[in-house]
Amino acid sequence: MYKAAILGATGVVGQEFILALQNHPWFSITRLAASERSAGKLYHEALQDKNGSTRWYCAGAPNKNIQNMLVEDASKMDMSNIDVVFTAVESEEAKHLEPRFAAHKPVITTASAFRYEEDVPIMIPGINSAHSALIKKQRDRGWKGFIVPGPNCTTVGLAASLKPIQDSFGLNQVIMTSMQAVSGAGRDGGVLALDITDNVIPYIPREEEKVQRETKKILGTLTDGHITPLDLAISCICTRVNVRDAHLEMVFVSTKKPCTPDEVKRAMIEYGRRISDQGWPSAPKELIVVLDDPFRPQPRVDRDTYDGMAVVVGRIEQATALENGIKYVVLSHNLKLGAAKGAVLIGEQLVKEGYIKES
Amino acid sequence: MYKAAILGATGVVGQEFILALQNHPWFSITRLAASERSAGKLYHEALQDKNGSTRWYCAGAPNKNIQNMLVEDASKMDMSNIDVVFTAVESEEAKHLEPRFAAHKPVITTASAFRYEEDVPIMIPGINSAHSALIKKQRDRGWKGFIVPGPNCTTVGLAASLKPIQDSFGLNQVIMTSMQAVSGAGRDGGVLALDITDNVIPYIPREEEKVQRETKKILGTLTDGHITPLDLAISCICTRVNVRDAHLEMVFVSTKKPCTPDEVKRAMIEYGRRISDQGWPSAPKELIVVLDDPFRPQPRVDRDTYDGMAVVVGRIEQATALENGIKYVVLSHNLKLGAAKGAVLIGEQLVKEGYIKES
Amino acid sequence: MYKAAILGATGVVGQEFILALQNHPWFSITRLAASERSAGKLYHEALQDKNGSTRWYCAGAPNKNIQNMLVEDASKMDMSNIDVVFTAVESEEAKHLEPRFAAHKPVITTASAFRYEEDVPIMIPGINSAHSALIKKQRDRGWKGFIVPGPNCTTVGLAASLKPIQDSFGLNQVIMTSMQAVSGAGRDGGVLALDITDNVIPYIPREEEKVQRETKKILGTLTDGHITPLDLAISCICTRVNVRDAHLEMVFVSTKKPCTPDEVKRAMIEYGRRISDQGWPSAPKELIVVLDDPFRPQPRVDRDTYDGMAVVVGRIEQATALENGIKYVVLSHNLKLGAAKGAVLIGEQLVKEGYIKES
Amino acid sequence: MYKAAILGATGVVGQEFILALQNHPWFSITRLAASERSAGKLYHEALQDKNGSTRWYCAGAPNKNIQNMLVEDASKMDMSNIDVVFTAVESEEAKHLEPRFAAHKPVITTASAFRYEEDVPIMIPGINSAHSALIKKQRDRGWKGFIVPGPNCTTVGLAASLKPIQDSFGLNQVIMTSMQAVSGAGRDGGVLALDITDNVIPYIPREEEKVQRETKKILGTLTDGHITPLDLAISCICTRVNVRDAHLEMVFVSTKKPCTPDEVKRAMIEYGRRISDQGWPSAPKELIVVLDDPFRPQPRVDRDTYDGMAVVVGRIEQATALENGIKYVVLSHNLKLGAAKGAVLIGEQLVKEGYIKES
Repeated sequence: MYKAAILGATGVVGQEFILALQNHPWFSITRLAASERSAGKLYHEALQDKNGSTRWYCAGAPNKNIQNMLVEDASKMDMSNIDVVFTAVESEEAKHLEPRFAAHKPVITTASAFRYEEDVPIMIPGINSAHSALIKKQRDRGWKGFIVPGPNCTTVGLAASLKPIQDSFGLNQVIMTSMQAVSGAGRDGGVLALDITDNVIPYIPREEEKVQRETKKILGTLTDGHITPLDLAISCICTRVNVRDAHLEMVFVSTKKPCTPDEVKRAMIEYGRRISDQGWPSAPKELIVVLDDPFRPQPRVDRDTYDGMAVVVGRIEQATALENGIKYVVLSHNLKLGAAKGAVLIGEQLVKEGYIKES
Repeated sequence: MYKAAILGATGVVGQEFILALQNHPWFSITRLAASERSAGKLYHEALQDKNGSTRWYCAGAPNKNIQNMLVEDASKMDMSNIDVVFTAVESEEAKHLEPRFAAHKPVITTASAFRYEEDVPIMIPGINSAHSALIKKQRDRGWKGFIVPGPNCTTVGLAASLKPIQDSFGLNQVIMTSMQAVSGAGRDGGVLALDITDNVIPYIPREEEKVQRETKKILGTLTDGHITPLDLAISCICTRVNVRDAHLEMVFVSTKKPCTPDEVKRAMIEYGRRISDQGWPSAPKELIVVLDDPFRPQPRVDRDTYDGMAVVVGRIEQATALENGIKYVVLSHNLKLGAAKGAVLIGEQLVKEGYIKES
Repeated sequence: MYKAAILGATGVVGQEFILALQNHPWFSITRLAASERSAGKLYHEALQDKNGSTRWYCAGAPNKNIQNMLVEDASKMDMSNIDVVFTAVESEEAKHLEPRFAAHKPVITTASAFRYEEDVPIMIPGINSAHSALIKKQRDRGWKGFIVPGPNCTTVGLAASLKPIQDSFGLNQVIMTSMQAVSGAGRDGGVLALDITDNVIPYIPREEEKVQRETKKILGTLTDGHITPLDLAISCICTRVNVRDAHLEMVFVSTKKPCTPDEVKRAMIEYGRRISDQGWPSAPKELIVVLDDPFRPQPRVDRDTYDGMAVVVGRIEQATALENGIKYVVLSHNLKLGAAKGAVLIGEQLVKEGYIKES
Repeated sequence: MYKAAILGATGVVGQEFILALQNHPWFSITRLAASERSAGKLYHEALQDKNGSTRWYCAGAPNKNIQNMLVEDASKMDMSNIDVVFTAVESEEAKHLEPRFAAHKPVITTASAFRYEEDVPIMIPGINSAHSALIKKQRDRGWKGFIVPGPNCTTVGLAASLKPIQDSFGLNQVIMTSMQAVSGAGRDGGVLALDITDNVIPYIPREEEKVQRETKKILGTLTDGHITPLDLAISCICTRVNVRDAHLEMVFVSTKKPCTPDEVKRAMIEYGRRISDQGWPSAPKELIVVLDDPFRPQPRVDRDTYDGMAVVVGRIEQATALENGIKYVVLSHNLKLGAAKGAVLIGEQLVKEGYIKES
């Protein structure tokens, strides 16, 4: 078993890490860390609020062992008894905290702090698995460990569904409108019911830039220790809708080679099935599920497909406004594949590849 | 005063017609018609349901006169005491009912039944006002009156916001994703809370075809008694979101001439102001309102701008994925400008132009 | 294995019956029936709608066998190959359909048609199990079988939570306000998003009378082949809120003997645990779960406790406005314990008691 | 014109104060104050957030004069140019801030800080107008001014609807369940969409105690400079539902004298009409509106009755569980009558009575 520490263990993403790891066949949770306020308490104590309520936000519960683990102060925690660090801290905090751990240990993170660095891959196992080789470059920083982030939760479904199209037909242009769930905004400064009931908010600060940039990097090519982003014309509008979990994206693409909706469908299905050969415990049976019902995918109905680890696609049709135009709808779970459990999947890939080792 | 009959007076759109007409300076409501079930009752009786509830669905109330008007059977009503007929019936019914009236009287309708006929314009006053001349062609049918429909409620915001771009810069491509309100599905077979709570439905049957086709016709040119649709590459995905009223649309356009977001903004504002010169009582002060706040327009916050008669635009920005690419967000009220009150505005234009006359 | 027929198999409750029975250790589904429209189709065909969508509304899916079963016309189906009939038809239809089957077979139903007949018990296994003896009375109708309904979905949580209070302290007065989920209104004529978004509807026709009457009958005493309803002063207000599933009820009771909130809590917990001794496969581990977190139970968070078969109680506190006053909040799943799966639990009790036999 | 200062002018309630006062016939806004962060900015600047959005949350807009007023630091503001202070600050802050102003000026507040003091009335004009005489007692504190709070937003509808029952029939017991809007929780620490979508939260800390206590005080009797609370047995459960504005309350009462639903209805209507005789500009035409439609009042449909200043009642029926039992449903707007505009109404009463004077 590989010993895993979780930073930011009391927040929503931290809780999802606990659920993804507490019965994991390869990882065992050895240490939990959170902010100073929680440090020194047992985990179940750290979840209590002053009104007698338990701040546990996920479906499923932490087991007894976890509940009675001591929560440490992330900024002071030492490195013993850790093979890998999963972090769910905010990006500002990640900037300072993650290098401290990466100096000694593998760090897998949901934070954006290091995503755009030259020597850091943004990983979606099964989509750009080969980018993990870039990790070695981080030794130039003098680190014994490394930092590997997953993408922004909105990037995941888009990049994953574009990959088979790129491989089979080549991508020219991508135009995407997202309808993002409120859980994507988190709980601190999260979306108020006041603001989203009977409403849509047509802007999420900095989201479009992230998605556009990350998609090109993930679909890019690693050569000579350097990722060349895909040369792709991409524009997005990212919006917030009154949905609890899962981001829905409406995608229009122009491909290099002509293709029919049926060919795109087959390319996605075949591509998506490869993931089941990897032996990664958290991988879905199919990474990309394509539905024929034109009313699907729907966030509430389809987000839990393969426990939230599948990208669900529907409505693959021609889009005559673009040259070799195809349109489709794609859904992915922002808290599962798009956050903690997606990060655990990265961990599994890195174990298989030997980047994470037992100490 | 022009004498107006309302067909389908008990439904939501019929009720909006009553609100738009009951205090109108030019029109007076002289006759109400609905289905056989309501015929023979006073209007307030026809609204009573068996559980003691009143089926009045709009903000504002019918006045005493209206409440005590007799509801007639639309299929049997004679033509006396009518200068213009406003109809809010379903399209299947409209196919048979509207020609019966058009044989004698001007008919303005929210139904789609005749929108795609060669001799029928789809009118948005202030956007394609000149298309009203096509009405004369309908005399070839042997009609003394005519049928003029407004567009699909989803077409309105798109076509109105594209018009100034077309005029100033020329349109090549349009890609649009809509987020449509549940009231657009009406009450019979309407959207169940069950299905849309915590959810988005990514498909509305036949909607995308309508929007694509109508937009090209509205932006087309009338010459020699024939509308040539605009030669425009347009693709849409139409979805249903958990919003009560108003359709929000995310639009990406490629223009013929280069243009900056600021130039597009100015073109829209200037174009939209012209409507105030027409002397139409239901016209908004500005047909197109452009907001600078990037979080706007929002359906709940902005839908009632100028009593739901404005098209509200925001987030006009570059879209690098397209040649001369611009993206923006547009909102319009599906039950006001997009239905009854938009139809009343058509009536006002046709009065000014002499197509509707006092008998 | 007992051979089970499901009437109304294509509706939501029928679908829940399929999920509850398709892997059941005691029952096997041998026949499916629905309306004339579906008759003669395979089950998966009967679910297809004209827009290419599948009308399957539940979490979980029917297995291959079920999908390929022939759907019969309930009104013409013969009685062969059936040991028990589970019905999910509307009450109007139930009036005619259920006696036809009861003449020969045990019928367990979610319909209200026979709930208020003298010789018919309203069963909640574990709460008024002894009332099953009333079944024998139905032989006087000349039936070889019988009809046993479960209660209204709103009655379940109230009656189940009141039972331990009645047993331990005696009930004088009960005052209840319900907040009912939209799924309780079904799909035909169901609650429109239009009407419930940003809203509460403070009335559900005939609901309060049902709940008041059924609660007294369920808590009543069976002696000499007759149920004497509990002499209880009970008043309710039943409302509809924007929740998908599960009914939440705010209850104020006045008891005969004084009692503390803690004593009520213990009485509920102890009572609720007895159900686990019965050997009924669908029974929850605890019929009544009591939570200490004052913010619970919440419909979305707690409705799936023990797969929707538990009654979840919280906020047990003193209510000084009443003599020996106690107030509490109770939640139960209207589609699970409150409908199909609750009816299957009745079936299990009746198998154990020998009222259902293999033919 | 009386010169009015608004404390807490940038928050939601402060904004409602601006809307209620900016075109007021008696009051003119002379000074605005908010927290240190906003101090020194013009009002429209203080509303700008860092993402380019305007934090104005209400329907209606501040006029140009208001937008260009300087926002002062409430803790340092001097007392010149003020006849009355309307405060919308949080209760913690109110404890320190309001006495500073009350030492010199009349203070009318929506905060709870002083509600439970012996010499402070909780005012609902038209319900307990006579309690204003208690103000004089506050001179014993050495104040030239005074503090008058309005009630908790949940108390308003309950106390107002109970008053005519108390006057006509006498009250014994009151049992109330509230369904409160999310706007009642404000914006700082407000209700997340995450938590309330598809959900109800059955607890609001400290709310039930406030409602119970305030109702008895408001319905109490002022004699010899002392309010004796009504001797009333009252128990409440206060919950949060997914409604934007307006609190709905389900009320069960036991009266001293027998009464029919019709008598209660008449008592409410007659009582509620008296308010129109007072000459208060913000008073609704009828303080209590009684609807016969059993599906009403509904929050979204009825909350804006008389611009949110009416208490709307429906479903007045017998409640047999209580002696002389009556049940009904009552709705009031938490941000209008229940907050700022209700406080302005208090100001109007106090002007008429001479407690507020021009300086």
